[in-house]
Parts: sequence; structure tokens; C-alpha cells
Amino acid sequence: MKTMVVGGAGFIGSHLCDALLAAGEEVVCVDDFSLGTRENIAHLKEHPGFKIYEADASVWDRIHSVFATEKPEYVFHLAANSDIQASASDPGVEYKNTYTTTFQILSCMREYGIKKLFFASTSAVYGDKREERLDEETAGLAPISYYGAAKLGSEALISAFSYMNDMEALVFRFPNVIGPRLTHGVIFDFIQKLKTDPGHLRILGDGKQTKPYIYVCDLVDAIMKFRDVHKTGMSLYNVGVQGETDVKRIADMICMEMGLTAVEYSYTGGESGWKGDVPRFCYCMDKIHAAGWRAVYTSDEAVKKTIQENLKRQ
Amino acid sequence: MKTMVVGGAGFIGSHLCDALLAAGEEVVCVDDFSLGTRENIAHLKEHPGFKIYEADASVWDRIHSVFATEKPEYVFHLAANSDIQASASDPGVEYKNTYTTTFQILSCMREYGIKKLFFASTSAVYGDKREERLDEETAGLAPISYYGAAKLGSEALISAFSYMNDMEALVFRFPNVIGPRLTHGVIFDFIQKLKTDPGHLRILGDGKQTKPYIYVCDLVDAIMKFRDVHKTGMSLYNVGVQGETDVKRIADMICMEMGLTAVEYSYTGGESGWKGDVPRFCYCMDKIHAAGWRAVYTSDEAVKKTIQENLKRQ
Repeated sequence: MKTMVVGGAGFIGSHLCDALLAAGEEVVCVDDFSLGTRENIAHLKEHPGFKIYEADASVWDRIHSVFATEKPEYVFHLAANSDIQASASDPGVEYKNTYTTTFQILSCMREYGIKKLFFASTSAVYGDKREERLDEETAGLAPISYYGAAKLGSEALISAFSYMNDMEALVFRFPNVIGPRLTHGVIFDFIQKLKTDPGHLRILGDGKQTKPYIYVCDLVDAIMKFRDVHKTGMSLYNVGVQGETDVKRIADMICMEMGLTAVEYSYTGGESGWKGDVPRFCYCMDKIHAAGWRAVYTSDEAVKKTIQENLKRQ
Repeated sequence: MKTMVVGGAGFIGSHLCDALLAAGEEVVCVDDFSLGTRENIAHLKEHPGFKIYEADASVWDRIHSVFATEKPEYVFHLAANSDIQASASDPGVEYKNTYTTTFQILSCMREYGIKKLFFASTSAVYGDKREERLDEETAGLAPISYYGAAKLGSEALISAFSYMNDMEALVFRFPNVIGPRLTHGVIFDFIQKLKTDPGHLRILGDGKQTKPYIYVCDLVDAIMKFRDVHKTGMSLYNVGVQGETDVKRIADMICMEMGLTAVEYSYTGGESGWKGDVPRFCYCMDKIHAAGWRAVYTSDEAVKKTIQENLKRQ
């Protein structure tokens, strides 16, 4: 089957390209290389089933011409601003890169009668509901970040487009995703900071922010397993892992792996790392577990593996 | 207080301008006159507290310049595509006129530190949930129209912007709104059709589509009553009326008011008037009733008044 991965040169997208090619699918990778990199897909360049287009999916003429040429059967939409902290100071980034990309991609699918979609959503659509176990039917979604708002708006578009055009849409609400090719986030930041100054680490917030971290290969495994929905409309899953890891613990694990024993921590204070960051969330995963999938790695294991790989690579 | 009504020359917006001026507020009316009309606000032209700008709120430079000049304290955002049936064939209308207007307005408010917002949302955000009594905490919102999707996306934006910028946002989810200055919808259509052909009426769907119809002055009364929220974040209410009215009954009432006794009805068939139309919904209004507001007119009374006024006007 001919698949298109929009955002295919990104951190998660490039792992998905790997998995789709390994499963024998043809892959049309579309990326504007604003966050994705040529390095992430360099190893796929010579693969006969792989093709790459440089295109900004928020610009109609650009993305439309790729659809017109390739007419894929399945679209995996992972194009978005993935740096939530950055868009806090410029919501226009989310309007363009997260919401408008979704609208343009759905419009192309509508025009060419493409019926199969995967969409990468996020826990950020819930907003700050730290006292609740979040399931797919949790009410009162109230995003506190522009990123969460643009993703919830995208889900709403997918709901309407899939109904109006008989599309089969699979939507995963991701937790924090980590692993090889990660380019930002707390693990990445702490390692960079400690390489520069091994005696001191500045931690945003109070260090108690606690999230489930999923290993990227576990997440891609879930996408591959559920990608054939066989049901029109939007099928929604929370995808998570066992356990969760707090920021202070991540700092401790990094120091240990780097062999640093006397690092002095300082905290900027407050519950959140930055305004718009949800300090804690907890997924109920009954739905995806009942469907027969579980992550291989716990949150702590995913963090440890990611630290080790990151240190080895550099 | 200086208020801005975006979409102020529209059906609902123009009634809101009337009410704000009557309450002694200053009103800056912004409209692109795509759906709004100069006739709707002609009676306000000489009012010393009234000012009008022709501007498309989805275009940054246009709306931004009005904000830069006027810097209102309160923004009532009623600009949207209000013809759901029309956008079914062109979702881009909703992207531009319903979602992008919201994004641009919120961005202007963020830039100028404007803290008070009213937003006109809709029952269409729920999707087809005809078996449920819809309250503000109903889960699993799944719009089936592009209009409902763009409104739910707008709510998500308001959730994030109000959190990030300490805004006080009042959001009403409107049912069907009718009354003087109505320019489309089932009542308007049926009267036009019967004037052209008094012997026959073609009804979309099976005629059993059943909705609550609110009289526009009741709705504006609720906006005026609750407009001072005194609470940051998004305050959400379902606004509705007692009773509901089906399409066949509307046809009967129009025939009676027009004195037509032998009209033959034909039905296009199917549960919905068009794809994306929700054939029935029912609001739970405990929240707004508990807050001390009730509509004066029932759904049937609102329909009857609207028919009579429409016939008298033409």
C-alpha cells in the first residue's frame, strides 16, 4: 500500500517510516525540515520504497501538489509544532503548523477520496486535570496551551471530515514520547546543560512535574498494530505506559549515567516548568489494553534507555 | 465601557448592538458584510455611542488595525459562517470565517491586554447525540459538520488563550436562533418557497427533525445578564428554551399564518435535512437556570412570533 507520512523526517515520523518500510509498505515522506532533519531519514534514502518531498503542509499549493502527484491510500499526519514551550510565546506557530496542516491535509484527502488517516494527538487536549485518571470519554477538555488547543481543534476537524467523507481515522493521544532522534524536551535539555556545566543543573519548576514517558518504538508499534481501523469515523485511544517519572528523578538518572556525583540542583520554582505546561497527568489505558496492546518499556525504563542512547550518540 | 461586537451587523450581532447601546455601553461594530447587512444596523447609524468598521476579522491586518485604533475593553465575537448547509460543500468557509476569525481576535486581545470576551458557540459541537440530554459536561464531543468542528476548535483556542492571558471568557452554546432580521434557515426558506408556489412545499429530510428554537431577544437577554463573568478562564453555558419544534410543525404553522389550507408537502427523505445536520438534540439547562435565567418564549412561541414578524415585514 502507498502510505504518506507527513512530518516523516521528524523524531516520531522517521521511526514510523522505518516501521512502515519494514512492513513492506511504500512510503512517501513529506516534511518541511523545520523541526525534522535530513539526518533522521538519511538511512532510508536508497530504499526503493521510500520517497521524500520537501513541502510545508500548511501551504495549500505545496501539500496539494504532493497529493495530486502521489495519491496515497493512507495518510499518517504527524506534522505539528512539537515544541510546546516555544509556542507559548507565539501562538501563531500552532495555528499554522499544528491546526492548518491538519485542515489542508484533510482537504486534500477529501478532494482525492483518500479514506485512511492516522493522527498524532496529545494528552495536552485535556488541560490540567491532575486529579483525574484520563480516559477517552473524560469530559470537559480544557487545553491550557496553544499546542493543546490546536490539537483539540484538529481532532474536531477529523471528527467532521471523517463523518462527512466516510474516512477511517485513527487518533492516538500521545503522552511524552522519547527515544533515539529526540531533539528537545527535558532529557535532551538536561544532558546539554550538564555537558556545559557538570557542577550545576537549573531545573524549571519545582522538579516534581510527573509524566508518563513512552519509548518511541513502543508507540510506533501501537500505530502499526492498530493502523487498519475498518470503521468509518474517528477511533480514539490514549496511548501510554506503565508508571510515570518526575523531573527530579530524570535529573538524578542523567547524573548517574554521566557519572556525575556532586551536581547542585537549583529550581526556578512553581508547579509547572512554564505557563501552559500541565504538571502531572495520568492516563487510564483500559481501552488500548483491552484491544490487545501494552508498552514493552515502563516510563522509567524508557527514560533510562533514552539517556543511555543519547550519551552514546554524542 | 467600550465594547466591540465582531459580526455586529449580522442577525444576532445587530440585536446585541441594540441591547448594549440601550444599556449605555459604547459599541464598535465590526463586520465584513458578507452575511451581515447595512440594513440591520441602519437604525443605529446616528447613535452617538455607535461606530462601524467594515473589516474581515479573518485577515490579520484588517482586524488588527481596528483593535489598534479602538482598544475595546470587551469583545463580543459573533463573526462566523452561520449557514451550515452552505459550508458542507466548502469546508474552507469554516476554516476562514469561523476558526481563523477566532484566532485573530484572540491574538489581538492578547496583544492589547484585553481581558473580556463573549463567544457564540453552538450545539453543533456535540455532534449527533440525539439520545442524550446534553449538558456542559457531556463527554465525547464529536462534531459531524465542518461548522461544529470550527466552533469546537474555537472553544479550544479560548480555553488556552484565557488561561495563558488571564482572560474572562463567557461562551454560550446556542441552539437554533430565530427572530427579526433572520436571513436563512427553515422558517425563512419555507416562507420564500410558499410565496413562490403556494400549492406545494418541498421539505428536506423526513420533516421529523426536531430542535429547540430560541427567540433572539431571549438569547441577547442572557448574554447581557451574564456578560460580566468576574472569573478568569472559560465559563460555558448551554442556552436554550422550553420545548422543541419539528420541521413539519413549522411548515404547518407557516401555512396557517399565511392562510394556506391545501398545501401539498413532499419530502426529500432521510433523517437529516442534509449531511452534517444533527436531526435532533436536547439540552439540559440546569446550569443556566440555576444561575437565574430562563427564556421568556417557548420554542413554539418563538417560531410563531418569527413567522408573524417575517410575514409582516415583507
